[in-house]
Amino acid sequence: MKVTVLRLGHRLTRDARINTHLALTARALGASGIVYDSSCPDVEESVQRVNASWGGGFSVESTRGWRRFIQDFKGVKVHLTMYGLPVADVLPAIRGQGDVLAIVGGAKVPPEVYQLADYNVQVGGQPHSEVAALAVFLDRLFEGEGLEKEFGGRMRVVPQAKGKKVVESN
Amino acid sequence: MKVTVLRLGHRLTRDARINTHLALTARALGASGIVYDSSCPDVEESVQRVNASWGGGFSVESTRGWRRFIQDFKGVKVHLTMYGLPVADVLPAIRGQGDVLAIVGGAKVPPEVYQLADYNVQVGGQPHSEVAALAVFLDRLFEGEGLEKEFGGRMRVVPQAKGKKVVESN
Repeated sequence: MKVTVLRLGHRLTRDARINTHLALTARALGASGIVYDSSCPDVEESVQRVNASWGGGFSVESTRGWRRFIQDFKGVKVHLTMYGLPVADVLPAIRGQGDVLAIVGGAKVPPEVYQLADYNVQVGGQPHSEVAALAVFLDRLFEGEGLEKEFGGRMRVVPQAKGKKVVESN
Repeated sequence: MKVTVLRLGHRLTRDARINTHLALTARALGASGIVYDSSCPDVEESVQRVNASWGGGFSVESTRGWRRFIQDFKGVKVHLTMYGLPVADVLPAIRGQGDVLAIVGGAKVPPEVYQLADYNVQVGGQPHSEVAALAVFLDRLFEGEGLEKEFGGRMRVVPQAKGKKVVESN
């Protein structure tokens, strides 16, 4: 199962840091790539830097046609929204249907997205953060194994009870 | 078990949105309050607005003495860091020890924090987002029940397969 994230309606300046957090969260929790509905060179650069050091082939792309992108996606289309059905109830139906497109909205999501999605899914019914919603969704979707992914990078953390240990190879 | 989040080393301007996302994530995933190491009126205001509409008594405070705050905390002190031990390995030891302080660092965390914490815990060994790390940590700590919390607010989402439904009472 391959997971792609589609980020809609981001506001370049205001959301610059949030967009980078979204991309790195998607990467760290096992998704394969993220697609934005407008170009975001800052995010691309951050992710390329992280890939170069820490490994993996996580991709950052942009599309001018998000509608077409959703329609053409081969797999299950999941829209993360506080108005959707509880994640715990919907996950069993999502798993095992092949690849997943996780659609993450910005401030305003066009009503059409709710119709284009196969599932509208809430990570809680309270207003919070699309970064948090995506993280919990991916963690549960992969049943905790998203975090176990091996990136095979030049740099690697060796978990420590106290302090920091990073191994660097060439 | 009551969970308090302590946010260290935030940079007011650059991290303004991230700080709000952190607070709302903590609230939505079942924590009781967040404490910053400097004052952040914007976050306080956002959270007050959310509490007023959506309910619950989630608190936002600031402390000038984060060291003392950690030392005086009655309960288990958990520092979320990519250099720590895997969350899945440490959680069984954390649960059942009473209240939890979840320490979330900013760009630079003083080395002392690693010593003051009872547990340094990684949510994956890859660089990503403190918002995502906190979300997954809380979701796993509460074994998914953080999201089930009832806030008893004036506004309440009624989960829908398509579209939005919010019930408002007075």
